[in-house]
Amino acid sequence: VNVQFNGQPLDGAFSQTRALQYGDGVFRTALIQDGRMVDRDAQLARLAADAEALCLQFDRDLLEREIDALIPTHARAALRISLSRVGSGRGYAPARDESDRLLQIGALPAYDGAYWTRGVDVGWSKVLLAVQPRLAGIKHLNRLEQVLASREMPADRQEMLMCDAEGRVTCGTRTNLFLLIDGILVTPDLSMAGVAGMMRGKLVELARRNGMACEIGLISPDEVRHASEGFVCNSLIGIWPIRRLGALEWPAPGKLTQTLMQHLNHPWSGA
Amino acid sequence: VNVQFNGQPLDGAFSQTRALQYGDGVFRTALIQDGRMVDRDAQLARLAADAEALCLQFDRDLLEREIDALIPTHARAALRISLSRVGSGRGYAPARDESDRLLQIGALPAYDGAYWTRGVDVGWSKVLLAVQPRLAGIKHLNRLEQVLASREMPADRQEMLMCDAEGRVTCGTRTNLFLLIDGILVTPDLSMAGVAGMMRGKLVELARRNGMACEIGLISPDEVRHASEGFVCNSLIGIWPIRRLGALEWPAPGKLTQTLMQHLNHPWSGA
Repeated sequence: VNVQFNGQPLDGAFSQTRALQYGDGVFRTALIQDGRMVDRDAQLARLAADAEALCLQFDRDLLEREIDALIPTHARAALRISLSRVGSGRGYAPARDESDRLLQIGALPAYDGAYWTRGVDVGWSKVLLAVQPRLAGIKHLNRLEQVLASREMPADRQEMLMCDAEGRVTCGTRTNLFLLIDGILVTPDLSMAGVAGMMRGKLVELARRNGMACEIGLISPDEVRHASEGFVCNSLIGIWPIRRLGALEWPAPGKLTQTLMQHLNHPWSGA
Repeated sequence: VNVQFNGQPLDGAFSQTRALQYGDGVFRTALIQDGRMVDRDAQLARLAADAEALCLQFDRDLLEREIDALIPTHARAALRISLSRVGSGRGYAPARDESDRLLQIGALPAYDGAYWTRGVDVGWSKVLLAVQPRLAGIKHLNRLEQVLASREMPADRQEMLMCDAEGRVTCGTRTNLFLLIDGILVTPDLSMAGVAGMMRGKLVELARRNGMACEIGLISPDEVRHASEGFVCNSLIGIWPIRRLGALEWPAPGKLTQTLMQHLNHPWSGA
């Protein structure tokens, strides 16, 4: 196979890797703090589970050695780990299930910490997430819905909430959502659409361990109006309290959100 | 941004291109015959329309010069043209809408011609296509559903038909479908799911120009049983008459399919 990129010939495994052709792979984004990967075990466990869901094999020891070689010099950064099914000629059907490893280190936006403190304005995206139980929850590389929704985000919003095609509130473009409704912390079920972030799983555990009622369930846009506080979260930003959601205004952070932020001990809490 | 692929440092635009991160791009696969791209205008027009649907810009003159430089030495081959949104740092929101150009030349499988002559056995995929009107029809790079369906194709089938989540028969894993039902040639509407191939558009025109009744419409699995013949198609294979579809058996090629194959004048017809 003869490959050319912007007019230049290209060779090697990279030119054939199936992330490039079909988005055939999975990824995780982790926070690097003081040369260490925050929540490393939880991140790698989720990467492994998502890979298995797509029948993708990878050499975990090798990946960990590459991570160890890359991150110690970074004081604070974002690490994106992608596994991409190895190329095996033309066509959708994969001949092999091994994966290539792609590691990307990037700077964190300065505003991530500021929004932790002062909260965010959130809107509703017009892009509806397709219902696909075979892929829901997996952090795979087919992310055009999130790209479309992010592209349409107004400048005065920091995040947009997305519903699925059947009207269930699902997640933000790059975050998971938690709402306090009738005294219970609820985060949307992701078995039909959406991405199950590491931070979402961590916060569900953290809330329950600290005696808060926390449920994974269906949330309709109507129920959102009954919430008394809420936040969005991911591995990099930690928790962003929601200050405004459309016409709704909430304390940011609300009392329960504040308690969770204290328990979380995220780097931003000391920033 | 610091990028590493299988342990090796990587730089340049290629390491950042968004096909790799999000499947943020579009593609076309064209047949190269005697150093020329078959149906070049139709292919590039569809590439341009799909790019526009994702707000992707590209320099068509530059792309055409690169194609001209690459293909003349190839007697018969598959050319995959991908446009991938240029990288612009971390995150779903694109900072720019220009695209990188990726050209890949590959050999055609020998069996493509054989199935033109003797027809194919087709099954029903258990993978349902998600309903997503914002992306339906577009030949974009988010193709995990096709990868899953191809991976599960039994060895004694040459193609699998896919329904969308609401039960509409939509397309094959890598082909479009035509059925002759009550004397009318029908191909599924693709406004909710599926990929609108160049060959599908060409055959609709060809059928109508030759006085055949040809419609784009909804097809239920139940209606398929009333079909008297059918075929799948794409740019590389041309037409593959369906010999068996599950428990159904059809003449392959049927009379109308045979007439279309004669009009199509595809390279396989002389192979």
